[in-house]
Amino acid sequence: MPKVLAVNAGSSTLKFQVIAMPEETLLASGGIDRASSPDAVLTIKDAQGQTHESRAHLENIDHAVDTLLTTLVAQGVLTSPDELAGIGHRVVAGGEKFAAPTLVTPQVLKDIAALAEYAPLHNPSEAAYIEAFARRLPQTPAVAVFDTAFHQTMPRVNYLYSIPMTYYRQFGARRYGAHGTSHAYVAHEAAKLLHRDLASLRLVTLHLGNGASAAAIQRGASLDTSMGFTPLAGLTMGTRSGNIDVSLVAYLANKTHQSFADMVQILNDKSGMLGLTGLSSDFRDIDAAAQAGNERAILGEKVFINRVVKYIGAYTAEMGGLDAIVFTGGVGEHRGSLRHGVLQQLAYMGIVEDPAQVNAQATAFLTTPASAVQALVVTTNEEVMIARSVMQVTAH
Amino acid sequence: MPKVLAVNAGSSTLKFQVIAMPEETLLASGGIDRASSPDAVLTIKDAQGQTHESRAHLENIDHAVDTLLTTLVAQGVLTSPDELAGIGHRVVAGGEKFAAPTLVTPQVLKDIAALAEYAPLHNPSEAAYIEAFARRLPQTPAVAVFDTAFHQTMPRVNYLYSIPMTYYRQFGARRYGAHGTSHAYVAHEAAKLLHRDLASLRLVTLHLGNGASAAAIQRGASLDTSMGFTPLAGLTMGTRSGNIDVSLVAYLANKTHQSFADMVQILNDKSGMLGLTGLSSDFRDIDAAAQAGNERAILGEKVFINRVVKYIGAYTAEMGGLDAIVFTGGVGEHRGSLRHGVLQQLAYMGIVEDPAQVNAQATAFLTTPASAVQALVVTTNEEVMIARSVMQVTAH
Repeated sequence: MPKVLAVNAGSSTLKFQVIAMPEETLLASGGIDRASSPDAVLTIKDAQGQTHESRAHLENIDHAVDTLLTTLVAQGVLTSPDELAGIGHRVVAGGEKFAAPTLVTPQVLKDIAALAEYAPLHNPSEAAYIEAFARRLPQTPAVAVFDTAFHQTMPRVNYLYSIPMTYYRQFGARRYGAHGTSHAYVAHEAAKLLHRDLASLRLVTLHLGNGASAAAIQRGASLDTSMGFTPLAGLTMGTRSGNIDVSLVAYLANKTHQSFADMVQILNDKSGMLGLTGLSSDFRDIDAAAQAGNERAILGEKVFINRVVKYIGAYTAEMGGLDAIVFTGGVGEHRGSLRHGVLQQLAYMGIVEDPAQVNAQATAFLTTPASAVQALVVTTNEEVMIARSVMQVTAH
Repeated sequence: MPKVLAVNAGSSTLKFQVIAMPEETLLASGGIDRASSPDAVLTIKDAQGQTHESRAHLENIDHAVDTLLTTLVAQGVLTSPDELAGIGHRVVAGGEKFAAPTLVTPQVLKDIAALAEYAPLHNPSEAAYIEAFARRLPQTPAVAVFDTAFHQTMPRVNYLYSIPMTYYRQFGARRYGAHGTSHAYVAHEAAKLLHRDLASLRLVTLHLGNGASAAAIQRGASLDTSMGFTPLAGLTMGTRSGNIDVSLVAYLANKTHQSFADMVQILNDKSGMLGLTGLSSDFRDIDAAAQAGNERAILGEKVFINRVVKYIGAYTAEMGGLDAIVFTGGVGEHRGSLRHGVLQQLAYMGIVEDPAQVNAQATAFLTTPASAVQALVVTTNEEVMIARSVMQVTAH
């Protein structure tokens, strides 16, 4: 029973899961907060759901990696670090270079580091952790799983912006999208639940969390997605603005005597639901406030729903019809009122909601069998998708 | 038979029509190129279609106004300048101040000038011409007809961006839209052609020209539109980019060592179809090149069609259905292949094109009576709409 370690490394935190394949059994999950610092906290939740927390003085990421592996052995998750059949690393930006999960070689590592331009906050730390794991376990195959790869099937008509072509050719200026691993996972799961061949389906998948994106999935491939060159574009998100008129940003920069970079930061960190509601970027807080009658919370939710509805409509037109809508991500899986707000507006498509399922909190159908378009919640699992990728890539 | 002068004043050109109301008969049309310059050219086309061109040494806009009125008398269009029942002035930006055509008073003029912040290339010259006509014909009522006014019915959920609310409150940062007079005109005409009450229809109107915008019109009112705070946003246009990820613009500014203002200018002047095709911003040229097999021209048209299709889909979802699609503007009225490209992708909606009408060049149905959604071409006439507004406002 091969065990795979799925790693999601940020600049100051590392999240992981150990998964037994091909059963896809979760053996342990957890993370390191403030990794490579004197007050790091390592959390491991075992298969029985018990959480073990320990503090460690971590000097650097090699120390973090070693501590993680040692603790996994100490907790009985692994008999030895060498037991791992492979390590899968989530990488945010794969550019046009990576259209699929890829076995890490020195050249691949170089390419990932070079793509830091597209994701300056992510790719460098991801590359650093890939290297640190390789130093500790040089014989264990590592696979890079790119958040953008699934969207590399988008046709030019959708990935190109209407700007001088030279910007695409010289600087890779195009739409890459994100959340690809999640969109791919839930699309596969939805096809299973629908008892349909994924290749026969036209799906809109909605990964709605603090970051949020929609994808049009046709014949199993990403046809279009709402995030752009970066994850700033598209839907209204927790703190991100989604689509906005660039001229307005220039006007506001001028009015408020802020730089372009300042404005981009405001659009990333202070906008979205936080900016609209003035309350929170967290839909749990916003939902509670909306229930209590807070007008800006109600307005914020209406805006959020409106943008999702418009993307579903746009993608339906693009695909020439729609078979199912798939909700996932923290908000998509748990905020029944928002899903209902979306589906209610799509009643004209012949969507018939199942009233018993409005508040479903895990994988379930939201519509009745008679509904012309099915709607489902699918609990996403990027780590399982990463583990599957490790098995596929290393099997060759 | 009251005669109305409809004026569309730009920074260096002035276009006009003289229209007899309420018959809406065009008596003369034309313009002044290089107005208020020593080599100005005044062109007047009379009701018989004959064009009279004269060169004039115009010292300032007062001189331009006087020359225009004198020439209209000399050509027999007017018996005297005082014969005009009213003058209607197109004004680009009306902000939230103006939700309807408005009789010009000193305060209105002040407000139009103050809105120059939103349209620095347009409102100042429009205000200057309103003043010049008022100096020449102080007794003739003048009506300002705002390009944004029709879209003032948009609900907050559609006009607000997902940014800190303070930007809306302090600086009017919101979606205003444009082409309002055209969208309103063609919606009214379409309702007549459909023998339906406009209030009962859900329409998507597409003003496609060098500038291009889509509008969702529900119960006769603008529900949503694709242009934003400025006309840069939304669809792919002749030279404008339409929607783009702001972070990409920041990235490109950085890469090419250009300022934010430089980038906004590139997005306005060098992007859109011109940027995509590398050939032209003119759809006649692009269409010819595409017919001849030019790959980038073909790609450019596909992108253009794709963005239109997505807006139609989005607005259909927003309105909960669709009764008709209305094409107008230079491209919408004359480029049959692009309209066909759009309608073809919407076949899933039950659209049935009338093959005999694909290349219609003037107001006509593009679909058969059996089509579930009707598609029409309507030749736009903003000047008639302006003349109607003059009559309505001055009747009170």
